[in-house]
Amino acid sequence: MDTRVAIIGAGPAGLLLGHLLKAEGVDCVVIERQTPDYVLSRIRAGVLEQITVGLMERLGLDARLKAEGLVEEGFNLADGERLIRIDVAKFTGKTVTVYGQTEITRDLMDAAPARGLEVIYGAEDVALHDIDSDAPSVTFRKDGREARVTARFIAGCDGFHGPSRKAIPAGVGREYERVYPFGWLGILADVPPCNPELIYANHERGFALASMRSHTRSRYYIDVPLTEKIEDWSDARLWDELAVRLGPEAAANMTRGPSIEKSIAPLRSYVFEPMRHGSLLLCGDAAHIVPPTGAKGLNLAASDVHYAAEALTGCFRRSDNDAVAAYSARALARVWKCERFSWTLTKLMHRFPDDGPFERAMQVAELDYIASSDAAQASIAENYVGLPV
Amino acid sequence: MDTRVAIIGAGPAGLLLGHLLKAEGVDCVVIERQTPDYVLSRIRAGVLEQITVGLMERLGLDARLKAEGLVEEGFNLADGERLIRIDVAKFTGKTVTVYGQTEITRDLMDAAPARGLEVIYGAEDVALHDIDSDAPSVTFRKDGREARVTARFIAGCDGFHGPSRKAIPAGVGREYERVYPFGWLGILADVPPCNPELIYANHERGFALASMRSHTRSRYYIDVPLTEKIEDWSDARLWDELAVRLGPEAAANMTRGPSIEKSIAPLRSYVFEPMRHGSLLLCGDAAHIVPPTGAKGLNLAASDVHYAAEALTGCFRRSDNDAVAAYSARALARVWKCERFSWTLTKLMHRFPDDGPFERAMQVAELDYIASSDAAQASIAENYVGLPV
Repeated sequence: MDTRVAIIGAGPAGLLLGHLLKAEGVDCVVIERQTPDYVLSRIRAGVLEQITVGLMERLGLDARLKAEGLVEEGFNLADGERLIRIDVAKFTGKTVTVYGQTEITRDLMDAAPARGLEVIYGAEDVALHDIDSDAPSVTFRKDGREARVTARFIAGCDGFHGPSRKAIPAGVGREYERVYPFGWLGILADVPPCNPELIYANHERGFALASMRSHTRSRYYIDVPLTEKIEDWSDARLWDELAVRLGPEAAANMTRGPSIEKSIAPLRSYVFEPMRHGSLLLCGDAAHIVPPTGAKGLNLAASDVHYAAEALTGCFRRSDNDAVAAYSARALARVWKCERFSWTLTKLMHRFPDDGPFERAMQVAELDYIASSDAAQASIAENYVGLPV
Repeated sequence: MDTRVAIIGAGPAGLLLGHLLKAEGVDCVVIERQTPDYVLSRIRAGVLEQITVGLMERLGLDARLKAEGLVEEGFNLADGERLIRIDVAKFTGKTVTVYGQTEITRDLMDAAPARGLEVIYGAEDVALHDIDSDAPSVTFRKDGREARVTARFIAGCDGFHGPSRKAIPAGVGREYERVYPFGWLGILADVPPCNPELIYANHERGFALASMRSHTRSRYYIDVPLTEKIEDWSDARLWDELAVRLGPEAAANMTRGPSIEKSIAPLRSYVFEPMRHGSLLLCGDAAHIVPPTGAKGLNLAASDVHYAAEALTGCFRRSDNDAVAAYSARALARVWKCERFSWTLTKLMHRFPDDGPFERAMQVAELDYIASSDAAQASIAENYVGLPV
């Protein structure tokens, strides 16, 4: 099979890129190792920046997002006693939309057949070839048969553990990494949220996040040592801990319910530079990971895809080769700023094992300063809602 | 001798408090261990917030400050390549004034006799007594004779190493401390500054600061490991290093000259809580230390003195005992915010031995973000010019 762009990975990044290229008349194929059901089963973040919503609008795939998404004009930082509301709409004139990543994926997946976007699921042993050349290819095994897709470009949208980044020769790129000394223990439950807007809390006992997917489905997190075992956290114990860490106001409004999903996820900051090598462009988690604080992961993948779609469309529609050459630098400029915000918010809202009383006092002072300063709130707001592309 | 307020320390904090109390008709005496010449020989920061300038104005002691001080509308962050100017005047409507701490001290010292402010210099073995009571006293030896000043309150303006804080019983207070793994190697020289506004640089090779005392006197710093010896730093070597770290633009305008003073100072963050115990009020370095990044030390002492003068005047002029009771909490709210800013700017502009490539990338990303964001610049500007009292 021959195409213009072989896209590896049918998560939101790969599907979004596929739809954007198709809409511009650029031929492409999406190759995915898993089944559709498996892809949809991955629970991820659910706060969309306008850049992400905007791409869905452009594709005309925003009907359900507009109908079911919750538009949020702000969010809250908490310190165990008070809520510090960051009025995102006031400071930026923009809003964010609560709509699960799973729902985005489903919308993109459902629309693929009608738009003529071919997605090959269940592709085993995906491998990249000749990425240094103008005629790279992707091989895989599907239903026991070997297959090959040749293309002008490959887009690696296959996440942190996928084969794309690993296909770049050793010594070409540079990795930046920070692993955090805790994980997020998350619970998903069909209960109404305790607060209409998200609450990020830094309590004496640790971090907590009150989030939601809809008016009837809530997502909560606390941070725990990485040695913690999920079986030691009954739903009751987790609800109790959330009630303490989120503070009395949120606790009073918190509805408990059985967990639909409960798991511990590690936190990592990671960037691979450059984001393009030869004919391979990396998008999203294939090139970078942010800790989930601030919900930047999906949105950063969306802005990568925006830049990649522009570059590839420029190449095929206007013979603009510079567009592809500029992709890495354009994408990385925004990636680093989002990495910075996610790292900063993670540091502000979590207790680190090595931190002493002075470092704790600095967190309290930072929260006090934020509570008192329009400039500080405006800075947080513009990052939360999404920096310009 | 009997007075209302015995002030220990005739640095800028003690003298400022003495003058403010005298101006309100509150009787006081300042007790200083050193000679006037020794006090004036201490080289310290020289960037004044409006709160500090305002106190000198209120005392009518601002004539020389207004004549000789340099009004600055901004300052610069640098990363070895570019200058990121923070337009303090644009964002805050306020300015800072470059005027050496030594000059403030001299102005306050010179005005003391005419204002009837008694300052006892050369007071040895200063000791505090009965601070838990309403009749505390200070004893010392002067010219070989024992002396005692009894008072209603004692103001400890005697710096980090003075006896005041140490007079508070063990277990009453709490200390917060962070010692930094580097020192500042400073040079003072009678050469014109390389730039009309300060430059804080974070170069690959380390921190540098281009500062000034006047149009003809410059103050420069670099950070060095604490193991470094001053005798290994000839003037020539230090000027060479400054030229590299400050970047080509500043280096081209840098005039070299022989050092008047050259020394290595450690950096420390320190806060003692509470700032009042019984009849003892702590002001300035006696209660807290900031790293010099951002030049907050003197200004923080000035805001403490502002609160202390209000509290003591309230007590004696309006019999308002709550004012003294509220002193610690009022002063500390601002202290912690200034500690936060000094710590944040120190972390942003220095290389820490434990930092890896990710942490370095975060500094670069922070500087890039600041360069691109009005909100970020406004936040830095309001802290640099001084948060409201």
